[in-house]
Amino acid sequence: MNGQFISFEGPDGAGKTSVLKAIGEELRVKYGDNLMLTREPGGNKISESIRNIILDPINTEMDVRTEALLYAAARRQHLMETVIPALKAGKLVISDRYVDSSVAYQGGGREIGEQAVWQMNQFAIDGLEPDLTVYLDIESEEGIRRIKTHRTDEINRLDVEALEFHQRVRKSYLNLLEQNPERIKLVDASQPLDKVLQDVKETMLQKYPNLF
Amino acid sequence: MNGQFISFEGPDGAGKTSVLKAIGEELRVKYGDNLMLTREPGGNKISESIRNIILDPINTEMDVRTEALLYAAARRQHLMETVIPALKAGKLVISDRYVDSSVAYQGGGREIGEQAVWQMNQFAIDGLEPDLTVYLDIESEEGIRRIKTHRTDEINRLDVEALEFHQRVRKSYLNLLEQNPERIKLVDASQPLDKVLQDVKETMLQKYPNLF
Repeated sequence: MNGQFISFEGPDGAGKTSVLKAIGEELRVKYGDNLMLTREPGGNKISESIRNIILDPINTEMDVRTEALLYAAARRQHLMETVIPALKAGKLVISDRYVDSSVAYQGGGREIGEQAVWQMNQFAIDGLEPDLTVYLDIESEEGIRRIKTHRTDEINRLDVEALEFHQRVRKSYLNLLEQNPERIKLVDASQPLDKVLQDVKETMLQKYPNLF
Repeated sequence: MNGQFISFEGPDGAGKTSVLKAIGEELRVKYGDNLMLTREPGGNKISESIRNIILDPINTEMDVRTEALLYAAARRQHLMETVIPALKAGKLVISDRYVDSSVAYQGGGREIGEQAVWQMNQFAIDGLEPDLTVYLDIESEEGIRRIKTHRTDEINRLDVEALEFHQRVRKSYLNLLEQNPERIKLVDASQPLDKVLQDVKETMLQKYPNLF
């Protein structure tokens, strides 16, 4: 496959959406249709149906491992219908979240265990790791503060979690960073957005000097 | 957990439904509510929703690994809502299919690989194997002949498969039998139903001498 595969990761409230919007707009000018901005479940019918099961507030009885398997199923379908065809076509693919999110949220946050979730997800991705992962780091207290301030339009099960959950998520991300220093690069997302964007671009340019 | 956990396995057309009906009726007299006859997805809301995604004929684009992950998710939920509570209550639990079905159908039949599907399912079952698995063995040609003759009421995606698919499924079951001689016991399901039932009961009595 000729394309490049970059994922963005981070705890809730790190500002991932704003960063991706700005970076995406800048890259779109240069790449046009050769840029694929995506996020799981990615608009395909099967993954959207799976996501509806996960996020349905009626499903309060959902076991944490059931949830992790459903996320992996949606990830697999998104990979096959969207990511892999784009990479084969030589496109630049930027994904809002990927396997690291499951390791951090289900493995760490929900305490299934990072290794177990990582191992199970290998079945879903069958070896397809991002070439570069930009990790937007934020202290849990600040992340939660930002969610409560800015997101009034979208409240789902995941947002209604205790501080300890968000702290476990961040700790898992930092573990992943330590274990994958070549792939995952940290950007301090507590800075003003302009400075965060500058650091993100520098991080991407270190991997791909002609990207922008 | 104090209960006993028995699974029934076999290729399509082996007569599993008829056998389970007869065995279940006989055991019900002795065990009453202490017998739990179940099959995935087992009637819980989440697993039924997952099953609807798998069996929806519109979802022709479903990747084989997506399908395997969805089966594992439904299995996990069934385990947590139905099987484990029954085993904790000391019940005799008999399940129509379990992990071996995924190894045989997805791993062998759909050619994902038996080991990969087995490994991924360990995440779903977290160590909970049946104490005994009764495997109803049938030649693929005969199994298909029986499906076509008897099942006019239920046609789904799985039934519309080539002979080679059913042969791979059976081969995987025979591999599992060879690898798990203590847990899995074969019964020749090509015999008349009365003889099959007799062999099934003898197999169960060898493991649990006072079962009937």
